[in-house]
Amino acid sequence: MVAYDEAQALLAACMQNIPLLATEFVSISQASGRVLAEDIRAVMPRPEADISAMDGYAFRCADMEEAGSVGLPLAGQIAAGDAPPPLGKGVAYSILTGARIPAGADCVVAQERTSITGGHVHLLEQNARNGLNIRRSGEEFCKGDMLLEHGQKLDWRHLPLLAHQGKEQVSVYKRPKICVVANGAEFGATATDARTELNTQLLATMLQSEGALVTRYVCRSDSMEDLHKVLHQCAQEADILITTGGISVGQTDHVLPVLRQMGAKCLFRRVKMRPGKPITVMQLGQKMVFCLPGNPGAAAICAQLFVVLFLRGLVGEKQEKNASMLIEGQSSFSYVAASDTTCFLPVSFIEDKGENLINLVPSVGASDILCLTRATGLVKISAGQSLQAGEMCKMIPFAV
Amino acid sequence: MVAYDEAQALLAACMQNIPLLATEFVSISQASGRVLAEDIRAVMPRPEADISAMDGYAFRCADMEEAGSVGLPLAGQIAAGDAPPPLGKGVAYSILTGARIPAGADCVVAQERTSITGGHVHLLEQNARNGLNIRRSGEEFCKGDMLLEHGQKLDWRHLPLLAHQGKEQVSVYKRPKICVVANGAEFGATATDARTELNTQLLATMLQSEGALVTRYVCRSDSMEDLHKVLHQCAQEADILITTGGISVGQTDHVLPVLRQMGAKCLFRRVKMRPGKPITVMQLGQKMVFCLPGNPGAAAICAQLFVVLFLRGLVGEKQEKNASMLIEGQSSFSYVAASDTTCFLPVSFIEDKGENLINLVPSVGASDILCLTRATGLVKISAGQSLQAGEMCKMIPFAV
Repeated sequence: MVAYDEAQALLAACMQNIPLLATEFVSISQASGRVLAEDIRAVMPRPEADISAMDGYAFRCADMEEAGSVGLPLAGQIAAGDAPPPLGKGVAYSILTGARIPAGADCVVAQERTSITGGHVHLLEQNARNGLNIRRSGEEFCKGDMLLEHGQKLDWRHLPLLAHQGKEQVSVYKRPKICVVANGAEFGATATDARTELNTQLLATMLQSEGALVTRYVCRSDSMEDLHKVLHQCAQEADILITTGGISVGQTDHVLPVLRQMGAKCLFRRVKMRPGKPITVMQLGQKMVFCLPGNPGAAAICAQLFVVLFLRGLVGEKQEKNASMLIEGQSSFSYVAASDTTCFLPVSFIEDKGENLINLVPSVGASDILCLTRATGLVKISAGQSLQAGEMCKMIPFAV
Repeated sequence: MVAYDEAQALLAACMQNIPLLATEFVSISQASGRVLAEDIRAVMPRPEADISAMDGYAFRCADMEEAGSVGLPLAGQIAAGDAPPPLGKGVAYSILTGARIPAGADCVVAQERTSITGGHVHLLEQNARNGLNIRRSGEEFCKGDMLLEHGQKLDWRHLPLLAHQGKEQVSVYKRPKICVVANGAEFGATATDARTELNTQLLATMLQSEGALVTRYVCRSDSMEDLHKVLHQCAQEADILITTGGISVGQTDHVLPVLRQMGAKCLFRRVKMRPGKPITVMQLGQKMVFCLPGNPGAAAICAQLFVVLFLRGLVGEKQEKNASMLIEGQSSFSYVAASDTTCFLPVSFIEDKGENLINLVPSVGASDILCLTRATGLVKISAGQSLQAGEMCKMIPFAV
């Protein structure tokens, strides 16, 4: 039995020795939610050329000054996408936002600050100056700049950069394959008081929203042989195995004996935390096996704290600044953790008149599935620590 | 031209008169990410019967007291899923976690606090008491209790409740259908300096991750007729139309004239905000048309602030407490908003030695796509307001 922080440290150390998942190419329209497996350096700058920031008129400042009240004759129009000829002496072009500045022009004056008379453009104010309303080539980034680093989880924010760089496909880490296994005769159709199995549904949905490909298995008996068959099958097909239930001291708790029989080595057995004390993590070759409690509330919280973190590591995801984003608020409750148990309390976050409040969600214990739906995250109270009502505390938001 | 808060108020008022999307049934394994269109009340309590919270022994306290050091003979074993017979006088059952308490038993003592000799169970401590380790039927919720209300966005937290209640399918709002339309000759293959169109990719990905079904169109010309054809088509097929670009004062900015021709009425035209000033929202019958700027940074920020909110309203999503979750931190920068312009600044959130810092992400303006990838959200500085370095401020995290 290990302390919570020790369990996390053991898992982190173990991850160092596990190779990242293989990579594959996907089209950029399929890349959102995936983790980049290549560095993206700029092959072209942005803007690619000097362009106009406004709809207006492009000219040479010196020409306009020289022309005075006569203004400059319009020599044509440049739209976005046009490749304009160089600017002639003493003329102006009308130019649209995003259009290339013709060579020789050094200024764009916005349309609303000009008037047009007899085919000549006149300034309403003397505001022309070198560089006005010109976006310089490379002002956003230059050729060779690092745009996105491998390990970046992609979302809508990253796609324009990829499209701009002409990427049609990008290299990403494969989705982790996970088998989630529940077990127990109580799930069998022949059980006199058969149960609905809840945990594989919960865990599959959670891990799918983290990008994993999840297969659910329910071993509906208390036979070691049946469980061995299922776990052996899972070890063939999955990158990660997750079991739920069957890890206590009861006569039908076969998960750990079967895994040991299969050659799995224990990383840690039981953690000084609540809920989730029974959690046990084993290693089967280079595959991790997370043995979660059977109580759904405890299984969910253990999956959030251990499995999600591990999954992100397996695809080389660099934790973005906001991944560790703890939400700060004033606690409306007091709590004292036992000297040997780190407690994770389901809480809800409420903004009330500009104040962030963190409220305790009532729970009847590790089996509670209702409290999860009322909670937005967890507050960690380390072993032997306490929290007083009115103190500031930090919520770990649920990954949903 | 309206103030930012006024624009939001106009949109919110308009939403009152737009019917919610139709509903459909989906299987619960497909329900994550969807918004519930029915109330879920408990048809059965949880636990459904009195059950054991531990692996141990169930008996009547009075019997054990009477038996004294002799202990109680074991009459059998009860596993989860079994329907046990009533407890005989003066006997104990071994019982597993989650198994039903036999009628007549009033106590469960954990296995590790007992010893077994000659088929009798003995207590190691005198700790038996009425109700010990018994989870009472209905302690989590009772029949008839409201479990989930319509408008709840579903994720892994809600699925166990649905499964427990025997729901195989639930009623959810249909996914909104959105057409996103870019336009401009610069996207045509025949443009001498053809551009890669970035915005429909960005917006489609963002809105898909909000659950929408998105179709992208690029009208690659500056012809009003071509644009009319595309927008007419979109109005047939979509619940919401989004255009990007072509709403400025240039000669090729045809979006608003075409929409007016189609009968669209303006809700607001331009907003006193930066970036995003050109944003215009129209109503075409009961369909909203969001006309976003052509600059991708501005389009993205307007979509986050206006479209995502509207989408959530259209499927009746009740804003969860954490949907308005603003992340508080200490500003590392100073900023003064002009007296007539509400500013939205891209920022990154960093936790440094327990302190939450909010840093300004450098941006070259509304066209900037790089700054989005460095930002985790926005800080709003209302018109005429300022923020000083060292002050606390709140970040609106990006919806990703």
